[in-house]
Amino acid sequence: MSTPFTLHPRLAADTLELGRHDGVLVLLMDDERWPWLILVPTEPDLVELDHLDAQRREALMGFAASLTALLRDITGAVKTNVATLGNMVPQFHLHVIARSEGDPAWPGPVWGQGEARPHADREAAVGLWRERLTGLLDA
Amino acid sequence: MSTPFTLHPRLAADTLELGRHDGVLVLLMDDERWPWLILVPTEPDLVELDHLDAQRREALMGFAASLTALLRDITGAVKTNVATLGNMVPQFHLHVIARSEGDPAWPGPVWGQGEARPHADREAAVGLWRERLTGLLDA
Repeated sequence: MSTPFTLHPRLAADTLELGRHDGVLVLLMDDERWPWLILVPTEPDLVELDHLDAQRREALMGFAASLTALLRDITGAVKTNVATLGNMVPQFHLHVIARSEGDPAWPGPVWGQGEARPHADREAAVGLWRERLTGLLDA
Repeated sequence: MSTPFTLHPRLAADTLELGRHDGVLVLLMDDERWPWLILVPTEPDLVELDHLDAQRREALMGFAASLTALLRDITGAVKTNVATLGNMVPQFHLHVIARSEGDPAWPGPVWGQGEARPHADREAAVGLWRERLTGLLDA
């Protein structure tokens, strides 16, 4: 018996949904301090990197690599951070974050740094990011 | 003209070399607070995830996935963190870290948390980890 996929409530509360890409939910962190995407494979009971089979892992990391290039192009970021931690939210999710010198946590990690600053206009943020991701989200 | 691969001096100073796996340098963070491995593809001028070609990326992430399973088995960790940040050291490197409830940074990230606690007996630590990684390091 497998349970169907449902997004962890903490992830649902902290993010805005942009769309899907090949079985992966693409979320925007609702924190305008950083350009910050979160990828969640829509498979139940995934926690660790080795729970993904090779094909899904390769597809996910290939997509993450494409997003790092896109984030640098769009934002002029000097660095991207790609990470799966899951210490607080066990459901497997991969962070892809654009970093710039002088950003609110630079050069430290972004997690656990102060309070999130939600997007002032969430609808506009989602619209902007969907446009940026044109061709990468499922129709 | 390409420059040959050399390990970034900061990584060299902060880690102990365990060996190589298929073109990837396998390092042990010299900080006994966490079981913490660092993987560095031995290719010059790599900075970002998308600088790796698909084949090398897939091999690296497959190896990282194997290590997450191994780390959980060995250490009884409840979670592994797999991340490439590179905000301080631009040379591409991938962290694979075993996390446990109550560890010195739990549930926050490990980076930038206080001072490293170097292994009391570095030679013994390297020996132990080489044994743990039997079959995964090039002969």
